Amino acid sequence: MAHKYVYLFTEGNKEMRNLLGGKGANLAEMTNIGMPVPQGFTITTEACTQYYEDGRQINDDIMAEIYEYIAKMEEIVGKKFGDVKNPLLVSVRSGSRASMPGMMDTILNLGLNDESVEGLAALTGNPRFAYDSYRRFVQMFSDVVMEMSKTGFEKIIDAVKEEKGVKQDIDLDADDMKNLVVKFKALYKEKMGKDFPSDPKEQLIDAVKAVFRSWDNPRANTYRRMNEIPYDWGTAVNVQSMAFGNSGDSSGTGVAFTRDPGTGEKKLFGEYLINAQGEDVVAGIRTPSPISKLHEEMPEVYDQFVDIATRLENHYKDMQDMEFTIENRKLYMLQTRNGKRTAAAALKIAVDLVDEGMIDEKTAVMRVEPKQLDSLLHPQFDPAALKAAEVIGKGLAASPGAACGQVVFTAEDAQQAVESGSMKKVVLVRLETSPEDIEGMAVAQGILTVRGGMTSHAAVVARGMGTCCVSGCGEIVVDYDKKEFTLAGKTYKEGDWISIDGSTGNIYGAAIDTTAATIGGDFSRFMAWADGYRQLQVFTNADNPHDAQQGSDFGAEGIGLCRTEHMFFEATRIKAMREMIVASTTEDRKMALAKILPYQQGDFEGMFTVMGERPVTIRFLDPPLHEFLPTKEEDIKEIAGELGITVARLHEVIDSLHEFNPMMGHRGCRLAVSYPEIAEMQTTAVINAALAVRKATGKNIVPNIMIPLVGEVKELKYVKDVVVATADKLIADANSDMKYEVGTMIEIPRAALTADEIAKEAEFFSFGTNDLTQMTFGFSRDDAGKFLSYYYENKIYESDPFAHLDQKGVGKLVKMAAELGRQTRPDIHLGICGEHGGDPTSIEFCHDTGLNYVSCSPFRVPIARLAAAQAAIKNPRK
Amino acid sequence: MAHKYVYLFTEGNKEMRNLLGGKGANLAEMTNIGMPVPQGFTITTEACTQYYEDGRQINDDIMAEIYEYIAKMEEIVGKKFGDVKNPLLVSVRSGSRASMPGMMDTILNLGLNDESVEGLAALTGNPRFAYDSYRRFVQMFSDVVMEMSKTGFEKIIDAVKEEKGVKQDIDLDADDMKNLVVKFKALYKEKMGKDFPSDPKEQLIDAVKAVFRSWDNPRANTYRRMNEIPYDWGTAVNVQSMAFGNSGDSSGTGVAFTRDPGTGEKKLFGEYLINAQGEDVVAGIRTPSPISKLHEEMPEVYDQFVDIATRLENHYKDMQDMEFTIENRKLYMLQTRNGKRTAAAALKIAVDLVDEGMIDEKTAVMRVEPKQLDSLLHPQFDPAALKAAEVIGKGLAASPGAACGQVVFTAEDAQQAVESGSMKKVVLVRLETSPEDIEGMAVAQGILTVRGGMTSHAAVVARGMGTCCVSGCGEIVVDYDKKEFTLAGKTYKEGDWISIDGSTGNIYGAAIDTTAATIGGDFSRFMAWADGYRQLQVFTNADNPHDAQQGSDFGAEGIGLCRTEHMFFEATRIKAMREMIVASTTEDRKMALAKILPYQQGDFEGMFTVMGERPVTIRFLDPPLHEFLPTKEEDIKEIAGELGITVARLHEVIDSLHEFNPMMGHRGCRLAVSYPEIAEMQTTAVINAALAVRKATGKNIVPNIMIPLVGEVKELKYVKDVVVATADKLIADANSDMKYEVGTMIEIPRAALTADEIAKEAEFFSFGTNDLTQMTFGFSRDDAGKFLSYYYENKIYESDPFAHLDQKGVGKLVKMAAELGRQTRPDIHLGICGEHGGDPTSIEFCHDTGLNYVSCSPFRVPIARLAAAQAAIKNPRK
Repeated sequence: MAHKYVYLFTEGNKEMRNLLGGKGANLAEMTNIGMPVPQGFTITTEACTQYYEDGRQINDDIMAEIYEYIAKMEEIVGKKFGDVKNPLLVSVRSGSRASMPGMMDTILNLGLNDESVEGLAALTGNPRFAYDSYRRFVQMFSDVVMEMSKTGFEKIIDAVKEEKGVKQDIDLDADDMKNLVVKFKALYKEKMGKDFPSDPKEQLIDAVKAVFRSWDNPRANTYRRMNEIPYDWGTAVNVQSMAFGNSGDSSGTGVAFTRDPGTGEKKLFGEYLINAQGEDVVAGIRTPSPISKLHEEMPEVYDQFVDIATRLENHYKDMQDMEFTIENRKLYMLQTRNGKRTAAAALKIAVDLVDEGMIDEKTAVMRVEPKQLDSLLHPQFDPAALKAAEVIGKGLAASPGAACGQVVFTAEDAQQAVESGSMKKVVLVRLETSPEDIEGMAVAQGILTVRGGMTSHAAVVARGMGTCCVSGCGEIVVDYDKKEFTLAGKTYKEGDWISIDGSTGNIYGAAIDTTAATIGGDFSRFMAWADGYRQLQVFTNADNPHDAQQGSDFGAEGIGLCRTEHMFFEATRIKAMREMIVASTTEDRKMALAKILPYQQGDFEGMFTVMGERPVTIRFLDPPLHEFLPTKEEDIKEIAGELGITVARLHEVIDSLHEFNPMMGHRGCRLAVSYPEIAEMQTTAVINAALAVRKATGKNIVPNIMIPLVGEVKELKYVKDVVVATADKLIADANSDMKYEVGTMIEIPRAALTADEIAKEAEFFSFGTNDLTQMTFGFSRDDAGKFLSYYYENKIYESDPFAHLDQKGVGKLVKMAAELGRQTRPDIHLGICGEHGGDPTSIEFCHDTGLNYVSCSPFRVPIARLAAAQAAIKNPRK
Repeated sequence: MAHKYVYLFTEGNKEMRNLLGGKGANLAEMTNIGMPVPQGFTITTEACTQYYEDGRQINDDIMAEIYEYIAKMEEIVGKKFGDVKNPLLVSVRSGSRASMPGMMDTILNLGLNDESVEGLAALTGNPRFAYDSYRRFVQMFSDVVMEMSKTGFEKIIDAVKEEKGVKQDIDLDADDMKNLVVKFKALYKEKMGKDFPSDPKEQLIDAVKAVFRSWDNPRANTYRRMNEIPYDWGTAVNVQSMAFGNSGDSSGTGVAFTRDPGTGEKKLFGEYLINAQGEDVVAGIRTPSPISKLHEEMPEVYDQFVDIATRLENHYKDMQDMEFTIENRKLYMLQTRNGKRTAAAALKIAVDLVDEGMIDEKTAVMRVEPKQLDSLLHPQFDPAALKAAEVIGKGLAASPGAACGQVVFTAEDAQQAVESGSMKKVVLVRLETSPEDIEGMAVAQGILTVRGGMTSHAAVVARGMGTCCVSGCGEIVVDYDKKEFTLAGKTYKEGDWISIDGSTGNIYGAAIDTTAATIGGDFSRFMAWADGYRQLQVFTNADNPHDAQQGSDFGAEGIGLCRTEHMFFEATRIKAMREMIVASTTEDRKMALAKILPYQQGDFEGMFTVMGERPVTIRFLDPPLHEFLPTKEEDIKEIAGELGITVARLHEVIDSLHEFNPMMGHRGCRLAVSYPEIAEMQTTAVINAALAVRKATGKNIVPNIMIPLVGEVKELKYVKDVVVATADKLIADANSDMKYEVGTMIEIPRAALTADEIAKEAEFFSFGTNDLTQMTFGFSRDDAGKFLSYYYENKIYESDPFAHLDQKGVGKLVKMAAELGRQTRPDIHLGICGEHGGDPTSIEFCHDTGLNYVSCSPFRVPIARLAAAQAAIKNPRK
């Protein structure tokens, strides 16, 4: 038998989602369980894939099969395409595996032509309705299928109304509608160079092609990339006989949810319009009534709908989102699907369904999208206050949450304003941020930058802090001297109130009240279920005691990455750091390091105190030293003065540190190889801090020291020898039996390739997949923005490899390193740090690859816990 | 039985080189075949390794074994350590697997003390000789073993001579020598804080330790790195009873070769000194006599020596380098080894030995070090003229050969001077060169730069051109304005003559005659033998018809890499390139590309004409576009004018092209993805050129198009689709059936990791191991110089991964990609381009990995042919 590309609704079921799309599978399922569904057929997703393989053509076999199913459908519904007496009219809708806004809109009333419109008029006894449907169809077909501009049609309607002296469509009668059809078809011929297709089958084939084509439109591509939907899934097409909600006052159409998608409350939630088709509800010209009102208007229909809704929820065991049409008091179901919901609703529904005995805990854990949790952890704008607010600009949604505060333009001003109490809440507005701004960023409610993307300094640091950030709003013009910025034609001065939404990128020119994050009882119950299934440990990245506490509050079981250099940027510390860098002898360098030591040790003590016996993994100095030096001439002059050296000498140091490709330069453990005294100082700080906290708390602190950027085992051994010599002496001097571990980052391809050797010296591996991605792809994250857009456009990459771990390339290295590492050291601890550690699909990969832990920023910890639980449920490890 | 660490000479043989070192194995071998060898023992290389494992200690077991062998030796030679009547005196020499200058000097006369010196005096009847030997021993031991400064001893000698009123050592008598010994020992005690060791066994153990220690001295480490000798080989120690060449006029010592090591001529070549020890020959105070003179002085000894030399050469079947001592007309052999020789001699000896029936061709092919061939292919200084020349400075030996010419300071001046005939031969002196200097570099005899290393632009381009280059001579101070430079206190102006030696890095302040490269009959006979064994194809890298011809002359079987961007830098072309870059629309870009097209096509025609039916692999545009734009403000102004755009606009373009890590930026195929019209133009140039040359020559030209920097198969497919669409149309329009191939560089780790997928679209892979090394190690070649010195110092890396392919990491990726590629496409053509393609050890790896070809710069082609032949002989493929 030839491959089957078309299925009647009676031939499918809800398990056939991949083949029939979500909509098609559910129409079939509803048909199967005896719901009133207007009948029709689904053209499969495979037909779509075939269409692209055939060079955007529907091949003869598929064409023949569609014609065959038109005949079958005509027989089932007892109507015929183009029939003057009893015409078959259909809707055509796209429907892919995953719900995908951005694809083709619906085409209604397909099958109308100059003959069948008369049949419709006779059948309904309503010529105005028939011709209104006809002109709508011509308009919709021209727009959606033929991609003609809408404005031509709107001009014609306006002209007709003006001629007649009326203002509303409703004032046009049957003849006016007829007139419109003639004019519309003339416009069509003028623009398209051919007559409007009168053959319903031709109309249908054109519509099917349009659905297939819409799979590849830019909106759809963008949506897919954002939601990790593979391009090769394709979309199905649903052809369904029309039910007319617009055939009079005993007809109507509506949308309803079995529970409140905003709160999760268990009550029917929805709205409907009398005498309308689906598009009218969307268009928003008329205000729909709440679904409860249907109880009064058509009680039997309402009862039937409530019954169906209950049956559907029980059948699917999840909150349903349904579309229905009433034609002359007869109810038709046009769609059902698991409804989209807010994070709060998702949690409540999952927990309620367990309490109602509908689902078990395992199923509940699978029901919440991990990414959704994010919004529960941050302040949000008060919805009422938000409605009234005007959006004055939009940037990138760089770090979620809502912030409201007074504008300041420098990190120092932010600090001073908050410390002095002159402002309580500030929003820091910068062209871009730099490491020196870190303290100002910490006191700000939110950060707004003109330049920089999702991975700019501002974005990365803000996400780490859990602070709201909108980045890269290029429309803002900042004048630092005047302390003001202009946006959308208005000027905002220091002290003016603004609000920003890091979840949408919206910027508001006024104060908007925020509501605090609420992590209620449902949240902790739900997360406890998740933890029950989880097999990966979840650690947090934390550079200071505050972050450590935050991560711990969110359930982190350890610290996977403490970036010690972040401790160096604070104003009081960076001076010693700079003294170290400009030192020309080892002795001078050691003297400067001695000044840094107490700061580091203090921070580590704070972190050990917070984490107790949970692992704390401290990465040694990583960035190239030039990052600590100024770049602007004025700063260079000032800092040379502070350091007590000549400007020329400072220039000399800066020049000597200049690198062509700093990403691949003198950084990571290469610094410790050149200047072992840095590793000595850092070891001293870690070990002394751990000894002190052990003494103070009696807890068995076991610090983990992590050497970054290793590419060769001898390099690791060299630095490790320095660490061990220093640590063992301190521990012996303290008469302690404290243990500590030394491990490494695997972030250079060569480290992954030689992981068997490296494991001889490393007690743990932490995959630094940010750098590993850069090196494996051979592109720098800072520069890739310039060309990656072309790559997305041309579907070379479907998703951002810095957001989702590239499993084919980078993942292969991770797997290889994990296997090689375990060959040498079966009990080696393996984890991932960096942004992928908080990304659900990457976490699933880590679970499947058998890693021991993931580490992510504090606010991602709950997401990682849930994603890890879901991965374990999908594919449990022995 | 315990591990054996010491072997008598009678216990070893020449096959035990790894254990006994070269010297030890050959002393044993000579003993075995009945040569007169002063007996002794060898402490193995394993003892050296053990010494380092034990923390630089000779452990008790080894110590005991040494004492045991001292006793055995005493019995064999019938003398005793420290004996007053018949004292055993020994020499102690290092000897590793490979001959390694840079390790410990020899210690002679060990075993002398206040007692045994009397024994020696009595035995020889020559107290002056005995005390002279003693004072020499104290001096040598203090210097070599205890690392005391020589100057103290020299001062004492000078004082004694002054006191006595004589000038020559020879004028000092036995008492003076005795006096020297007393004073030397006093100095020793003063400096070392203890008495000079009088126990010969203690002396011996100290000397053995010194030999072991010398394996790790900086000179030795540098030598090993340059010669790829692994650190873990260790050195053996040879303890041999002394023969006294300094015991009177019937004694002497000398060195001889069985053939002339300079020319290869078959005649005994060497020199000797009467009444001397080895060190006197080296010291050069007395002028040795040619070996032929020994025939007159001691005919029987001479005859015996000739006989031994002949037997040794026949035994080893190679030219021997021998040391001998005559003690009272008795000949002793102290060493024999395969002699070092010049490239010319190596060739002649290999060919002669075949003609003499001593060795077969296969053995001959193994006898010449591939790297040596290099010097045969370049001009050399006339040796006589060179002797008189004064070295005024030294830079890096960046590109071999000798050059002599008049100084010019800019590429334009070089071109103008040569074109106008105002100077015939120029040496271009620059701070550093840049791509725009390329034409000036091409006309220069040699290039001398102040900055830049072995991989600087000047070095890389010069090697490609086969032009002599000395780079990075930091002592030079250039004044471009005055057109002069100063070096070693002297100023050289434009037009002054200098000479530079790219094989040594020497700079001479005058003209020195050069002799042209001579590739005689021996060369081609020898290379034909090599080609007979070779299984790898050898291609050349060539960016223009001239290089193609050069490579072809040296035996290249195709072009493995034509870097098309090098064609863009010439003055007349770069303007169109810049127009392309500043274009703001696709149309403007296409117009500019249309100007470049004829240049490219012309170059390709030239290359196809030279290469005929041999493959020509053309890589599409690779470098980031900013490389084509000026950086200096004055140039920006000028070029904006030329391009007819504002300076501000040009700045805008330059800013927009700025990258943080250009190595990992917008380059390679990423350019073609963004601007497919570039790939279209280049395809047009390649295909049209090939069609034209087919038509003109009737030859079956099959161009290979190579897409650089691919990391993902879809990326390759995207660019390939552009290439194929363009090419197929041109070929069809020309009514031709021409074939062409499209392949890719594998130079990004991800390409290697996903090579199975990439092979679906690529007909060949060319491993770009320069970039692959950078990405795999995660360090940029331009920046690594800053920290790699620490890595060498600490023996983390033993050799430069850019010079020798890193087999563990990068090599693993190459192997993986080769296997994955062949899985998908069994007949895929695999090769390597880039500098490793001309490096013998890397070529051996390519052979062993089963690649099909290597490609290297024209002057490396003969080296690669020989290296490939040697690899095939060592490890033939089925």
